[in-house]
Parts: sequence; structure tokens; C-alpha cells
Amino acid sequence: MSDIPTLGIDFGGTSIKIAAVKGADLISDMERIPTQQHEGPDALIEEIKKRVDSLRAKFPDIAAVGIGVPGAIDFEKGITYNLTNVRGWTNIRLRDIIQEKIGLPTVLENDANCMAYAEFKHGAGKGFRNVVCVTLGTGVGGGLILNGELFRGSRFAAGEIGQMSVDLYGVDGPYGNRGALERYIGNRQIGELAAQKYFDAGKDAPEDLSPENLSNLAEAGDEVAVAVWDTVATYLGACLMSTIYLLNPDAIVIGGGVAHAGDVLFIPLREKLKNSLTRECFDDLTLSHARFGNTAGIIGCSTMARELLDA
Amino acid sequence: MSDIPTLGIDFGGTSIKIAAVKGADLISDMERIPTQQHEGPDALIEEIKKRVDSLRAKFPDIAAVGIGVPGAIDFEKGITYNLTNVRGWTNIRLRDIIQEKIGLPTVLENDANCMAYAEFKHGAGKGFRNVVCVTLGTGVGGGLILNGELFRGSRFAAGEIGQMSVDLYGVDGPYGNRGALERYIGNRQIGELAAQKYFDAGKDAPEDLSPENLSNLAEAGDEVAVAVWDTVATYLGACLMSTIYLLNPDAIVIGGGVAHAGDVLFIPLREKLKNSLTRECFDDLTLSHARFGNTAGIIGCSTMARELLDA
Repeated sequence: MSDIPTLGIDFGGTSIKIAAVKGADLISDMERIPTQQHEGPDALIEEIKKRVDSLRAKFPDIAAVGIGVPGAIDFEKGITYNLTNVRGWTNIRLRDIIQEKIGLPTVLENDANCMAYAEFKHGAGKGFRNVVCVTLGTGVGGGLILNGELFRGSRFAAGEIGQMSVDLYGVDGPYGNRGALERYIGNRQIGELAAQKYFDAGKDAPEDLSPENLSNLAEAGDEVAVAVWDTVATYLGACLMSTIYLLNPDAIVIGGGVAHAGDVLFIPLREKLKNSLTRECFDDLTLSHARFGNTAGIIGCSTMARELLDA
Repeated sequence: MSDIPTLGIDFGGTSIKIAAVKGADLISDMERIPTQQHEGPDALIEEIKKRVDSLRAKFPDIAAVGIGVPGAIDFEKGITYNLTNVRGWTNIRLRDIIQEKIGLPTVLENDANCMAYAEFKHGAGKGFRNVVCVTLGTGVGGGLILNGELFRGSRFAAGEIGQMSVDLYGVDGPYGNRGALERYIGNRQIGELAAQKYFDAGKDAPEDLSPENLSNLAEAGDEVAVAVWDTVATYLGACLMSTIYLLNPDAIVIGGGVAHAGDVLFIPLREKLKNSLTRECFDDLTLSHARFGNTAGIIGCSTMARELLDA
């Protein structure tokens, strides 16, 4: 399975990351292309091709290419419908364009699905049958493994955990979806929540209200920071509880920056789930951190690329 | 497929319904055994066997048996863990007991899954790939068809739509799951909601606050009854919205008594979904009434029984 190297291209709003991969391991350095320095698809695709060519010169047995993109795609047709935070990428036949330019079998997938697939095949979701993956960052994304396969849904739009509602009377979501989870626990919202909690506690808020710093503070015993993570666990727990009642998974994998919070997030989260689920849903459920950080997308799509060769 | 008749046994808290089925059609009268008149599993199973024997005398080519039960089961082992509203049914090897007594291949399934399967194979979910079925009654149940197959989850507990939360600050659910959908739109809760709305409007509430009567009143133009269904649509819509973001189904099928409300429920429900979903999730989504009423369970489990013969 991991004998033949493939290429992973993780297309993000800030940078496009490219690396050669064998199994779960990067075998090259991770190349980065700043997404915004290239205007529109054509220039970016040319730049991607250049980097790919130079990686293929070093690893001539690279046999397939996987691309993960942030946003809605048609998986079967290999078309990007609309990329989040990247303008000009509507209705681009990206899979076929790359396949023609590079001359290797190519697969195009949504980035959250790539992360879920990496965790399922090589990481924290390995060996489980039904895995719900959540990635916490600027927004909240998700991917589902059901009966041992990536579940894409009827229009390849499944897994949008961040758009699920935790409160029908809550704040507006981006699509009129009131109470959308990501409007409570996106990175910025966690910072705002923390600012409010420090204010309420009559304490000066720290300058740095990033999830990373708030998790360091909580681990060091800062009570306000601890309370912030408890609130995050309340929102995330409410959404995961609904997800678990619907899907009865055997594993939940949580990745992205916020997941680094570790015990300060995971201990209250586990407790809240235990106190709101039936035993059938909770007893055999494994709740864990993602194994992969910023390489998850590359590893997921390069794994899918590798599987193209066996299909 | 529908050439060989099978038996469907729909086990409910009030009565056990039994009929012979070919395809989507009952070919016998529906027999009823009052569940509570027989104490414990042994007496009930004897009574079931009597009815089955008399049906087999009339239809000697009956070749398999399906049983649907209200509550948690182990599908693979054919064991009832715990039946809702029926005492004394914990850890009963019901599938094997029936199979031994009757001498025909037997399948045991959760009743909400049976209803979903009936709709998928013969009813409103036919021809779709990913179907979410919801049944509204005393409680709220659900069943999922994903990629053309019944999705059971890791412990056969998937599809518990009624336990999903629509409000993390909401009323307590039966398992500590605050904001559980069924605590808002179960039959009794709809009656209470209506009583409150008539009171708020300064009107005398009708004696009969059943979903059936409230739907008749709404269709006749009673503004309070119309408002009741709009509120029901708000709760149900919030939960379905989350379900749709997670699973991106191509069909939602709504059954059970409340579904008879018809347009007074479906028109606001469709509008709320349209206004809270992305186009990828809404544009190709079909929202429809269940085809089957109180025969859904029998038809679903007898269809599963028929498929045993091809396996």
C-alpha cells in the first residue's frame, strides 16, 4: 500500500502546500506557494505544475496526485464549485486540468474530507468503522467515515459539522442557519468569548487571546481560561451529542488548532458527552485528538491518490 | 422480489401487529395482539406463534419472518436490549427464539429502521440514495438510508433524531440531552404548545388537542392552530437542517401521526429549510410524506425477511 509515492497538494486560502508522500510519511520537504500572490487559477496552476515537476525530478516514481481544496466540489466530475476565501475558483475543472498538465492519475477532494481520510487510514481513526472527524480553526469543518468508507453525501457536501445548529434561537450562521456551531467556537469567537469572560471576572485580558495561548493559560491554572474551554466544550459537546445520536459512531477525532487545547478541552467534553448520551452511544465511543496537524490534508489526498492506482 | 410472501411482526407498546406481506402489500388481514394482556416474553411469544401458525395455514408458502421492535437491539445477535414501554424484554434472544419456534429464517430490527426501510424500498424514499426518515408520534424516531443501505451505526443505535438537541439551553431530554427534539414535538408536547397558544391568544382551546384535530383546525383556517404548526416546523426544521448539513441527503421522508398535518406543516418546514441551507444541500432535496401509515413497520421488516432468502 505504501510502496509507491504519490503527491499531495493541499490548497488553502493562505498557501498551497505540496509534498511527496509514502503511506503516512512525507518523503520530501513541504513546498509552499502563497495563494494570493498568483491571480486566478491559470497562474496558480502554472506555479503548482512547476513545483510538481521539480518534485517528480527528485522522486521519479511518483505515480498519482491528490488535491484537497477548501470548499464545495463535485467529486465525480472533479470540479471546484466555489472555494472558501479564494476568489475566481468557481466551476474550475481542476482535476482534469492537473491530470492533463502533469500526466498522472489525479483525484480532487474537499479538504475536510482529506483530513478525515488521513486520520481514518493512518491516524486516530484507524481501525474504527464509523468515524466523525471535526477540525477546529477559523471555521469548523468535518468529515465522516461510515461503514469504513468516506461518506460524501448526495452532492458531495456531507460533513458540514460547523453549520449544524446548537441553538435554534442562536446567532445567525453564514447561510441563515441560526446557531451554527462555527459561530461559537471558531478561533475568533473563542477570543471574543475569552475577552468577555475576563471582563466579567474583573480581570485584565491577556494580549494574546489565540486558542494556543488560552490553552497554555488554562493548563497553567488560569481560572478564566479554564472556564473558556469549558464553554467551548459545552458548544462542541452539544453538536457532537446530536451527531452521535444520529450516527452512533465508534470514534470522534478532533483536529485543528483548538484541539491542541488538550485536557482542558477534552476532559469537560468527555464528561458532557457521558452525561447526555445513552450507554449504547457512549460506552464504546473513543474520543481522541487528531494525529496529524498541518500535514493532514496532504496525507489524506495523497492516500486517495495512491488508492486510484489499485482501483 | 415480491413473489414469495413473508411475515411481518410489528411489536408495539400497545399491540403487536402481524400480517403476511408480498412486496409492498399486505395479503392477509392485520392480526393484533394486545401487548399488555400477556405477561412477559414467554406468554407473548406463545401467542405470536399461535397467530403465525394460523397465517401459515392460510399462506403455506410464507418463507421468512421479520420482527420490528421499539427499542435498542443488537442486530447481529438478534437480541432485544431494552424495549421502550414494554417491561421484561431486556436481553431476550428474540430472533433465535422465533426462528426455532417457527422454523423459518428470521430477522430482528428496530421499528424506526423498519419504517425507513419500507419507505426506501417501496415508498416515498424509493429511488433515492441517501434518505433521512423521521417518524413523529408519542416520541420522535428516525432511520437512515446511506449510499442505498440501511445505516445502523456501530452499536445499531443510529438514527435517533428525536434525541438530537435543537437548543443547548433547552428542556431536559430523557438521557440528560438538553433540547432533545422529541421534548418539543412529541404528540403531548404539541398539545401543550397548542393549549399555551390558545391561552396567549385569549381564546378557548378546543377540547381535542391531538395533532389530528389541530391539523384539521389549521386547514380550516384557525390562526392559532396554524401558528402551532409553524412552531412545530421551527423545531423540526432546526433539527433537520443540522441533519442535512451533516449528511447531505437527497430525500427527507416524514411519517407518523403528525405528518398527516400536511401543508400546514410542510409548507413552513420547506421554507425554513430553504432559508437556512446552502444550495448544494437544498436544491436537489426532496421533502415528502411517508407513503405508509401504520403498516410501515410490518412492510419494512417483512421486506428485510424477504431479502434474507436472497442473501
